[in-house]
Amino acid sequence: MSVTAAQGFEAAGVASGLKSTGKKDLAVVVNRGPLKVGAAVFTSNRAKANPIIWSQQAIADGVVEAVVLNSGGANCFTGSFGFQTTHQTAEKAAELLEVSPGDVLVCSTGLIGTGDEVFRGKVLDGTAAAIAELSAEGGAAASLAIMTTDSKPKRAVVTDSGWTIGGMAKGAGMLAPGLATMLVVITTDAVLDSAEADAALRRATGVSFDRLDSDGCMSTNDQVTLMVSGASGVRPDPDAFAQALTAVCADLARQLQGDAEGASHDITIEVTHAASEADAVEVGRSVARNNLFKAAIFGNDPNWGRVLAAIGTTAAAFDPYDVDVWMNGVRVCTAGGPDAPREAVDLTPRATHLIIDLRVGEATATILTNDLTHDYVHENSAYSS
Amino acid sequence: MSVTAAQGFEAAGVASGLKSTGKKDLAVVVNRGPLKVGAAVFTSNRAKANPIIWSQQAIADGVVEAVVLNSGGANCFTGSFGFQTTHQTAEKAAELLEVSPGDVLVCSTGLIGTGDEVFRGKVLDGTAAAIAELSAEGGAAASLAIMTTDSKPKRAVVTDSGWTIGGMAKGAGMLAPGLATMLVVITTDAVLDSAEADAALRRATGVSFDRLDSDGCMSTNDQVTLMVSGASGVRPDPDAFAQALTAVCADLARQLQGDAEGASHDITIEVTHAASEADAVEVGRSVARNNLFKAAIFGNDPNWGRVLAAIGTTAAAFDPYDVDVWMNGVRVCTAGGPDAPREAVDLTPRATHLIIDLRVGEATATILTNDLTHDYVHENSAYSS
Repeated sequence: MSVTAAQGFEAAGVASGLKSTGKKDLAVVVNRGPLKVGAAVFTSNRAKANPIIWSQQAIADGVVEAVVLNSGGANCFTGSFGFQTTHQTAEKAAELLEVSPGDVLVCSTGLIGTGDEVFRGKVLDGTAAAIAELSAEGGAAASLAIMTTDSKPKRAVVTDSGWTIGGMAKGAGMLAPGLATMLVVITTDAVLDSAEADAALRRATGVSFDRLDSDGCMSTNDQVTLMVSGASGVRPDPDAFAQALTAVCADLARQLQGDAEGASHDITIEVTHAASEADAVEVGRSVARNNLFKAAIFGNDPNWGRVLAAIGTTAAAFDPYDVDVWMNGVRVCTAGGPDAPREAVDLTPRATHLIIDLRVGEATATILTNDLTHDYVHENSAYSS
Repeated sequence: MSVTAAQGFEAAGVASGLKSTGKKDLAVVVNRGPLKVGAAVFTSNRAKANPIIWSQQAIADGVVEAVVLNSGGANCFTGSFGFQTTHQTAEKAAELLEVSPGDVLVCSTGLIGTGDEVFRGKVLDGTAAAIAELSAEGGAAASLAIMTTDSKPKRAVVTDSGWTIGGMAKGAGMLAPGLATMLVVITTDAVLDSAEADAALRRATGVSFDRLDSDGCMSTNDQVTLMVSGASGVRPDPDAFAQALTAVCADLARQLQGDAEGASHDITIEVTHAASEADAVEVGRSVARNNLFKAAIFGNDPNWGRVLAAIGTTAAAFDPYDVDVWMNGVRVCTAGGPDAPREAVDLTPRATHLIIDLRVGEATATILTNDLTHDYVHENSAYSS
């Protein structure tokens, strides 16, 4: 399953002591080829963790042999010692796998600012232990080892005519911006070159992970990696591959949304009839980041006034007095004025569907977010303690 | 006190039935002259409430005779009926005060999307009742009538050589953006023309209310009005007046911060050594809007990693790996790496002082915000119910 569903991949997940609970905390995913193609997208935060700085260099040639991922520490703002830890992690894996260190990506997640000698020792030992356990059935274990506040692992697989895409994810976040660090590894045995892999990955993440905005916060460690083994021997139609990859990414994004820290509602914000897709995204994101709206949804309150107050802060083309708003199938606002009474809206289901009809154009975008809850505050205030 | 501290002003606050609690909910402040100079600043939200649309027109000539303010309903997105309510409110006040309706400003605060016949009747009757009770001792009652979720009224007075500035405020918000609608009325008996009043007000609000960012949400109804009677007969030194007005605004802004919905910490974010004041404001605001940081402060957790993750999303000039962070007097991050241990920081006091030293220039700015708490979520999820 997950990253070992496609042919040509092995994975493992082990407990190296990074998590105080003793649960699995270190994963390795290895591409056995014949192709060793890779592509990756990273957080756009200027405050980048050491693994991001390393992996951005390592991916430049489009070749990836392996990815090492740890939970239990973000290795971010840990100085040159922290960067050396990442470097040594790649070197350790490369030595044991007999590949070049520059073809090993590293991902970390956990608390920022921690990464001492003890942390380094556990990561290096864990890397060796995981490599010793690599197997074509290791995908499930790997998906467990990257979890932090996740309540369950996230996995997705799509199979098309002769080739397969599989992936795993952790976190309840996104790329830009994101929260709680999103780490994703996707593998495929389709035959692609690095330019094709990169293009397909950017296309797929642009309309999936990039539109998941749980709490407006951008992580220092977000990374999505695609590894291509070509082991199926099948060269897919580019559009078919991109669609399948988008389906895997969208599936994983929905799983991340459904397990976001402390959330009690999964909110789908559909912006319609915008002048441009960029406008639609801007409008949707403004609502996804509005604490007052998100707290209202937590309270099952169809407070559409907060929707209009949120979108009024954007530069998108629309007339605030000519906007319609629907909540869970009920039109609560027509042309900027009250329509159906609040009592007509049932917000008790976890799935919440908001439509904002800007009535100016033909573009559409959907943003996924969550409500703002007591549990969100609790989980994020108690995070480091 | 408050708006009746300066000579030439009368005020009143009455209960008109808009608040289900039966508390005062309608205030009127009248300028008895001899000057009838006014200036005002408004929310920059494109989704503007009817009173904002009305008052922006009414202030254009720089003449203000009176301000009518109601809590218990924002009269926003209430259609043409709602605009007529605002218009009729100004006309009612003008008729009773024997002035021009175009010299009466209107402010409203409360739930968006409500403003029916019953609301209108209460506002009009309340306006008449308040005008019947106008007195030079009415400032305290007026400051009570504009409260919504405020736990106490906010008032400030500064007296200089012969002239006085007094003000009242409600809400825990700001101008752009703001939350929970901030309404402020400031009066003075100093002698100023409308251009001087406008310039002083913009200078004062730009470094006080505009830098209060409790939760990143911008209200549809925020308004700050300055009324000038000239009754002291004293023409102040422009700089002395601007400083005194800034002091009154800063005092009221601190009171708003100290009473923000559900907050348990008042966080002062001081950004130093920025390349420009705009950079300093952008950096400070990015932290003020970061839910993860704000939840950490609620939990008394000096999580400086979240500070760096927040400022990394800005375009301000600095090197993330050359930034120092201080919390309550303890340097927790030096040059983007860990410094003093977390245990050295005491975050139990309500007053929280964060310094972000960008180490690139000479500009400084201070942003005021609050933490993200269980009570914030509770108050804003239960708001309309």
